[in-house]
Amino acid sequence: MPQTLFFVTSNASKLAEVSAILAASGISVQSMALDLPELQGSIEDISKDKAKRAAEAIGGPVLVEDTCLCFNALKGLPGPYIKWFMKDLGHEGLVNMLAAYEDKSAQAVCTFAHCEGPGKEPVLFQGRTDGKIVPPRGPAKFGWDPIFEYEGQTYAEMDKAAKNLISHRFKALEMLKEWMEAHP
Amino acid sequence: MPQTLFFVTSNASKLAEVSAILAASGISVQSMALDLPELQGSIEDISKDKAKRAAEAIGGPVLVEDTCLCFNALKGLPGPYIKWFMKDLGHEGLVNMLAAYEDKSAQAVCTFAHCEGPGKEPVLFQGRTDGKIVPPRGPAKFGWDPIFEYEGQTYAEMDKAAKNLISHRFKALEMLKEWMEAHP
Repeated sequence: MPQTLFFVTSNASKLAEVSAILAASGISVQSMALDLPELQGSIEDISKDKAKRAAEAIGGPVLVEDTCLCFNALKGLPGPYIKWFMKDLGHEGLVNMLAAYEDKSAQAVCTFAHCEGPGKEPVLFQGRTDGKIVPPRGPAKFGWDPIFEYEGQTYAEMDKAAKNLISHRFKALEMLKEWMEAHP
Repeated sequence: MPQTLFFVTSNASKLAEVSAILAASGISVQSMALDLPELQGSIEDISKDKAKRAAEAIGGPVLVEDTCLCFNALKGLPGPYIKWFMKDLGHEGLVNMLAAYEDKSAQAVCTFAHCEGPGKEPVLFQGRTDGKIVPPRGPAKFGWDPIFEYEGQTYAEMDKAAKNLISHRFKALEMLKEWMEAHP
């Protein structure tokens, strides 16, 4: 009997990536669009808070995700605020934020939070991939993929299947899969 | 009969500045420390949400404040996220964020939100002061004051009374005072 996960997202690319990675384990993912404003704060607090409110809103188990792009020279910022910087500044503006620094290294961080239902404490699954910030290369289809370089290729230049084997999201989903297998 | 305003803040410098500006109108300010995580989003939404939750938490009228520092070259960012950037990057790091740009102009934005009580719609009072971002000058006593230059002087270099006549916070408080006089 395949498991179905309710995943709160309105991002079709994210849904496709998560579905593709979990399909291999027979887990089907159903998306739910739910308008959930996010808190400011630490990655962990933001994800837990979002999962709790999502579980309350739908009255059942739910999965939420938060992606951060952390520039090491900026002590981890923009981090959880990356979506606002990406939206307002675009690829060039993000690259420019590191103009004053030699250190272009960055970490892509994906945090899934699973909450079993209203009042339950969410469980977190976090994947991190190290890379560096470069001028954009590859198709601009998915967020900041063109400026995040991993071992010589940007995420945008990589074959999707190859990216799904090393990405921050893949690593987090691996942990989620293990957990789901242990908690069927 | 002097009016008393409950102001949610744990920042002593902010309390002192607000008290000094409102004292001239016979309004006394009492601070309340309340741990209210802030949302991500627009300045206005963040302030309204915070005021609503504060009014619910204390069961009565309340004033909250949010300060943004908006870099024009960064389309208004870091904006509402300035406190995290200030905390993690300090003055030098903030100045560095504009290294790629000729345009060092910025706007200091202060938003007060007054909520009469649980379930009431907050009223906003917003003041904006134009300036530019410069390497730090003056005592590092109050947030990003040393790097925000207004007409040749940084906020930190200015006499407090002089700053309180042109600051973003002063402008917002002027509107609040007018409103309070009309709604005693």
